[in-house]
Amino acid sequence: MVGLGVMGKSLALNLVDHGFSVVGFDLSQSHCLRADKEAQELSINPNKGQFKIAQNLKDLLSCLATPRVIALSVPAGEIVDQVIEQLLQNGLEAQDIVIDTGNSLWTDSERREEVFAGRLRFFSTAVSGGEQGARHGPSLMASGDPVAWKHVEPMWTAIAAKVDANGLSIDSHQSGEACAAYLGPAGAGHYVKMVHNGIEYADMQIICEAYQYMRQVLQMSATEIGEVFTVWNQGALNSYLMEISADILKQQDPRTGNSLVDMILDVAEQKGTGLWTAVNALQMGSPATTIAQAVFARALSANKGRRVKASSILPSVKQTCLEDKTQALKALEDGLYCAKLVTYAQGFDLLKSKSELEGWQLNFSDIAKIWRSGCIIRAAFLQNISAVYEHNSELDHLLFAEDFIEQLSKRVLGWRTCSAQAILSGVAMPAVISALNYYDALSSSLSPANLLQAQRDYFGAHTYARVDEPSTDKFHLLWESETRLETKR
Amino acid sequence: MVGLGVMGKSLALNLVDHGFSVVGFDLSQSHCLRADKEAQELSINPNKGQFKIAQNLKDLLSCLATPRVIALSVPAGEIVDQVIEQLLQNGLEAQDIVIDTGNSLWTDSERREEVFAGRLRFFSTAVSGGEQGARHGPSLMASGDPVAWKHVEPMWTAIAAKVDANGLSIDSHQSGEACAAYLGPAGAGHYVKMVHNGIEYADMQIICEAYQYMRQVLQMSATEIGEVFTVWNQGALNSYLMEISADILKQQDPRTGNSLVDMILDVAEQKGTGLWTAVNALQMGSPATTIAQAVFARALSANKGRRVKASSILPSVKQTCLEDKTQALKALEDGLYCAKLVTYAQGFDLLKSKSELEGWQLNFSDIAKIWRSGCIIRAAFLQNISAVYEHNSELDHLLFAEDFIEQLSKRVLGWRTCSAQAILSGVAMPAVISALNYYDALSSSLSPANLLQAQRDYFGAHTYARVDEPSTDKFHLLWESETRLETKR
Repeated sequence: MVGLGVMGKSLALNLVDHGFSVVGFDLSQSHCLRADKEAQELSINPNKGQFKIAQNLKDLLSCLATPRVIALSVPAGEIVDQVIEQLLQNGLEAQDIVIDTGNSLWTDSERREEVFAGRLRFFSTAVSGGEQGARHGPSLMASGDPVAWKHVEPMWTAIAAKVDANGLSIDSHQSGEACAAYLGPAGAGHYVKMVHNGIEYADMQIICEAYQYMRQVLQMSATEIGEVFTVWNQGALNSYLMEISADILKQQDPRTGNSLVDMILDVAEQKGTGLWTAVNALQMGSPATTIAQAVFARALSANKGRRVKASSILPSVKQTCLEDKTQALKALEDGLYCAKLVTYAQGFDLLKSKSELEGWQLNFSDIAKIWRSGCIIRAAFLQNISAVYEHNSELDHLLFAEDFIEQLSKRVLGWRTCSAQAILSGVAMPAVISALNYYDALSSSLSPANLLQAQRDYFGAHTYARVDEPSTDKFHLLWESETRLETKR
Repeated sequence: MVGLGVMGKSLALNLVDHGFSVVGFDLSQSHCLRADKEAQELSINPNKGQFKIAQNLKDLLSCLATPRVIALSVPAGEIVDQVIEQLLQNGLEAQDIVIDTGNSLWTDSERREEVFAGRLRFFSTAVSGGEQGARHGPSLMASGDPVAWKHVEPMWTAIAAKVDANGLSIDSHQSGEACAAYLGPAGAGHYVKMVHNGIEYADMQIICEAYQYMRQVLQMSATEIGEVFTVWNQGALNSYLMEISADILKQQDPRTGNSLVDMILDVAEQKGTGLWTAVNALQMGSPATTIAQAVFARALSANKGRRVKASSILPSVKQTCLEDKTQALKALEDGLYCAKLVTYAQGFDLLKSKSELEGWQLNFSDIAKIWRSGCIIRAAFLQNISAVYEHNSELDHLLFAEDFIEQLSKRVLGWRTCSAQAILSGVAMPAVISALNYYDALSSSLSPANLLQAQRDYFGAHTYARVDEPSTDKFHLLWESETRLETKR
């Protein structure tokens, strides 16, 4: 393990914990000492692996049997390339395996696979679940040299998060399905992780919108909303994010005795992976509307001063809410479920577009499976998605699965009701409602793009196709002339 | 004029038409012949300028007085750099001015300004309005070396589109305000043009959504919708796009006798500038939700096969519409106006963010002015925007202007009504409704981002700020421990 920061150390300890012996190296002496101390405490147990600190990369290489398996946990970017070059200078051989476990851009992983081909077996693994996940069971999105996977698989399978037959998280030492899978060539793992993070953004935003609706339309307290989330977490909306949101809303502020959430400043921050997903979705022409809305919602929340001013001067002109609270909550639950389903459908659709473009042949059932535990978006719901793709790996769109159509037929009306109510009440629900607009546009055999194509032909002679001719034939109308003749282009 | 394709030729003819003499060059003999023929026909009139074809770049340079003013109309990208290098090899001098009039990326213009500093005066001008605009009056977004502008200004002012005191388009030979302005350093012109195109995408989408609403909720024919657009075009919604949409909807198909728009395939195409704007808005953290939704809506329309399938299998569960048609149309008109206003507010907000980041000191009043004619988004409405910024150049947000607040107070209820009705009726209006969600989020002194920050602190120790402490102080709660202590980070 090269790099013994928080993530590298945790992965190393997880390996030792599962009986694998690890040689660690880090330029920082204090990182080495800390990792060594914690590992030795663990290694006292005879079932565990051994841990040793190497003095340098040459020493590290000399400790390992061929083919060597070297995991990197170093900052993403040039450092990854530099460390690999140094390993090569110190005697790394062509059959040796280098696994990048950092937060690399998928395009960097693709480049490295090419650049290092023949000199080493390059492999990448996106690790989800933070420090706790890395130590006790992460979700591992592996990709790269398929021969390398044979050597990596036993380790990743052992240390990954585990789920039982119902898709529920269990201790990573128990036998169960491991949240680790080989996904394709080197870029695939980090790409899938990026989409995971995009979905995470939308999932969080949807929950926040439900909170805002209950707070502002239904005038409920944080604790009351937390109770609702707890109930929802026992049904179809069960997920880690719902669970922690319920927990958060019931948390008292240790200082004031108020609900803690009421004392937290409503200004969102972001680290950028949701943004990357939204940008990529735009570039791919794959409508991931809820993810883009979630990114914009965070940006919009950030300018608190402007919002406060706007709230005092912009006319709101709302309609009052007279609805029955129980019915309103049921409709909101339905809306949440549908918006979440659309978010995942958009995410998997983006993965499908990318997989087809790159020839990755991503296995969507496997991806849903390894997200069932260890990562932030873990949810019972992913068990259903996995089953759907297992049943039909060629499914064009997640919403087309029978099980989900059945759910939708029960829930679409509630989704419409809470969305319309939010609009009339002046509560912003950009992710929930953009999901509904996506749903309606998707279900629209007639889009208004015929007018749009006519506009483009009118001002830019961009041509249009006709419904009564092959769609590849393009026509232009002489809009500016008296004749208004149509010509074929 | 180097490059005599459609745009280069039209700009050259426009210059000749306004009494400027032009030397043209193009590698294509047929381009040269065509331009020369059309120019000579024009030059017969003694008030016009002269036109001459140069044999090569050396010949071209020798025909011009110092400082030479050379406009390029060549394909964007490397060719621009190559032509400039060739001009330098053929004797271009440091005080000479090179104007890139192509569709360059603004970052390329920024780079060129740096690379060519001291060797020539680099200048860029984004040209809007297509072939007709270039020939008879474009909107010209100029930027680059300020000394160069003194030499360029008389020409650009002469050939640009003109508006009268009410902001209405007049013939470019009449005296009026010219739609040409100097905006800042070299990247500014193309950046402003990019945002213009993003707004154009959203503007078109909003009109398409109104069309879809009238078609599907109010069951109106294309001709009837065209009549409504004609009426709207006489009021606050007056614009070129509204005008041509009305014209399109009343156009009969020359073949079948049906409305032509009903015979046009509902699959949108795009060339990418709206996409660039949406991507840049995400990267800038500047919420341009309607532009992003417009880009996604085009992408969604493109997969017609999937939409047709979805329409047959996905449950729609709509509520029937019982509203009065006159009232419904009034509400829709209000919705359109407000969504359009938000689109422009988001576009100008993006320009403001970029201007502050780059130190461009963009003049928003000028930008609104030069968009009043010559370009696709020309509209009476831009006169109001220009007046608002002229009155207060430091305005934080377009919606905060008194005139617009007055409009909003009359129209927000209609906006909510038609949006809620669209949601209940199953008609997708992603741009109109995302604009409303933006409006409600912007006017929300309390966003739900406090819950979001708590979630991030819970799973990733990302910390939160408190409402009762300075917002720069960050706190973390030990969510996973029994104590749940709060610590300052």
